[in-house]
Amino acid sequence: MSNYPNMHDVETVACVGIGTIGGGWAAYFLSRGFRVQAWDPSPDAGDKLAALIDAAWPALTQLGLAPNASKDNWSVHAELADAVAGVGFIQESAPEDLDLKSDLLARIDAVTDTDVVIGSSTSGYGMSEMNQRAAHPERLVVGHPFNPPYLIPLVEVAGGRGTAPEAVAWASEWYDFIGKSVITMDREIPGFIANRLQEALWREALHMIDNGEATVEQIDLAITDGPGLRWPIQGPMLTFHLAGGPGGMAHMLDHFGPSLKSPWTRLEAPELTRKLRDDVIAGCDEEAGERSFADLVAERDAAIIAVRNVIGELKAAPKAAV
Amino acid sequence: MSNYPNMHDVETVACVGIGTIGGGWAAYFLSRGFRVQAWDPSPDAGDKLAALIDAAWPALTQLGLAPNASKDNWSVHAELADAVAGVGFIQESAPEDLDLKSDLLARIDAVTDTDVVIGSSTSGYGMSEMNQRAAHPERLVVGHPFNPPYLIPLVEVAGGRGTAPEAVAWASEWYDFIGKSVITMDREIPGFIANRLQEALWREALHMIDNGEATVEQIDLAITDGPGLRWPIQGPMLTFHLAGGPGGMAHMLDHFGPSLKSPWTRLEAPELTRKLRDDVIAGCDEEAGERSFADLVAERDAAIIAVRNVIGELKAAPKAAV
Repeated sequence: MSNYPNMHDVETVACVGIGTIGGGWAAYFLSRGFRVQAWDPSPDAGDKLAALIDAAWPALTQLGLAPNASKDNWSVHAELADAVAGVGFIQESAPEDLDLKSDLLARIDAVTDTDVVIGSSTSGYGMSEMNQRAAHPERLVVGHPFNPPYLIPLVEVAGGRGTAPEAVAWASEWYDFIGKSVITMDREIPGFIANRLQEALWREALHMIDNGEATVEQIDLAITDGPGLRWPIQGPMLTFHLAGGPGGMAHMLDHFGPSLKSPWTRLEAPELTRKLRDDVIAGCDEEAGERSFADLVAERDAAIIAVRNVIGELKAAPKAAV
Repeated sequence: MSNYPNMHDVETVACVGIGTIGGGWAAYFLSRGFRVQAWDPSPDAGDKLAALIDAAWPALTQLGLAPNASKDNWSVHAELADAVAGVGFIQESAPEDLDLKSDLLARIDAVTDTDVVIGSSTSGYGMSEMNQRAAHPERLVVGHPFNPPYLIPLVEVAGGRGTAPEAVAWASEWYDFIGKSVITMDREIPGFIANRLQEALWREALHMIDNGEATVEQIDLAITDGPGLRWPIQGPMLTFHLAGGPGGMAHMLDHFGPSLKSPWTRLEAPELTRKLRDDVIAGCDEEAGERSFADLVAERDAAIIAVRNVIGELKAAPKAAV
């Protein structure tokens, strides 16, 4: 059995790499009341971190600080071993370079108590690629955030070959404990989940620009004033569940399934097999849970109005307040 | 030259087809202070429209009604010619069936003054396909809304072969005049713009479900708690402009361009030519306009906080208020 820390006892965490992503993590940990010990090879890393925390703090204050949170409760250390000494968790956010990250994770691993879980912010590598040089790969997991990590709740957690299932479970629970929205993946896929979805949309947009079919501004307007208004409350699946009317996703797939063959994107669709159909419908039903169709519609509409109004107010303000 | 109506003088519009989409349009027109004359072959169309307007009215009231708006200012007509008599604009929202729509558009065309523009809500057909049987195709345009049309502002406008450029211009101005966010396309592409982006994301999601890589719920959470929080304020292009740091989209493309080759989605990327690179960068600069990098970051962060807070409040409420 693992001896991973009781997370209620964790007081200090380490951030290894404190650029935009690592610094954002540091600001977030501070807001949750933790002490942060940082390490970064850049000589002005401390100054940049101070500036990032200053910039992020008003936003974090608006979202709500932990009672004991302090924006000054951090230190930058010259030695990696000093940065990780006594911490209950480590978040690695080095530049996206496989050799560099593999090496750094091995170095962190070498100076850190084996009961401490180490999460990597990588946006694309699998842990199986990155943990090759580490002596204790079992506590190395991916904990992929979204920019800015102090505002976007999502963290995707995935282990690799050599990662202990207990470490994946602990990391998922830990990120949830500190207030993140956690997706625990049961396998490694390139780009995880959110980046794959985002990348498909991005590539279709690039194709359209490449062919003169749409401008940059039209693409952004198509999202901000179109489906993007629905997506903070209901993702693409539940959105289409409602688009199917009271018959839900089953009606949607049975009636609009053939449109998967239409050339509405350059991405080929999978074959809509009976199993895929049933899996998608069951998933929607499970996600909807106790909420009726009318509940979901009311929820969507209330959210669209609220989002439109709040964004309208922000745009009308002479200057953004943050 | 065209004799299309002066839109300030338009008092009455026609909705041909008043199901979910056409009924949503009717509710929206009423909220903007217009009288609506409707036609629909379904015997209970009037009852359904009354129910839809009743359900939509609180939302429309929250978004703000025109001073003279009345939810009862509509009529359903047995004869198509009566429904279009004296109107300043017609919105066709028949079921998505090419033969049916081509026939209906020809019938509307035959009984409508040639100075009136007719917009079709089609979500996929090009007007060149649909206008084949009409005697006056020059005033037939696509005006593609998003569901629900009374809440989502986006309308994509496109003509076909045979559409007068003046009709496309008038329709764009008209939708803008009534408070919509308008994208005027200079060509027909299947799925227009927003549906192509949405469809790419949807197909990638179906592939992941098909392969057991993600559940329905994980896909929705990946969007609602991840990139979906940024998209109501800044679309995918401006989002990546900021992800590039102060160097913007130029830095992004020059440093992460090679990742277009990585298998982060099943959609092949276009070749990142010098021209595509420059077009994307110029488009972002144009869209950003006078706003500095810091302005855009502040705008994004303020919006994320506002959206998170407002959606948090809605979720915490015992029951959605609409």
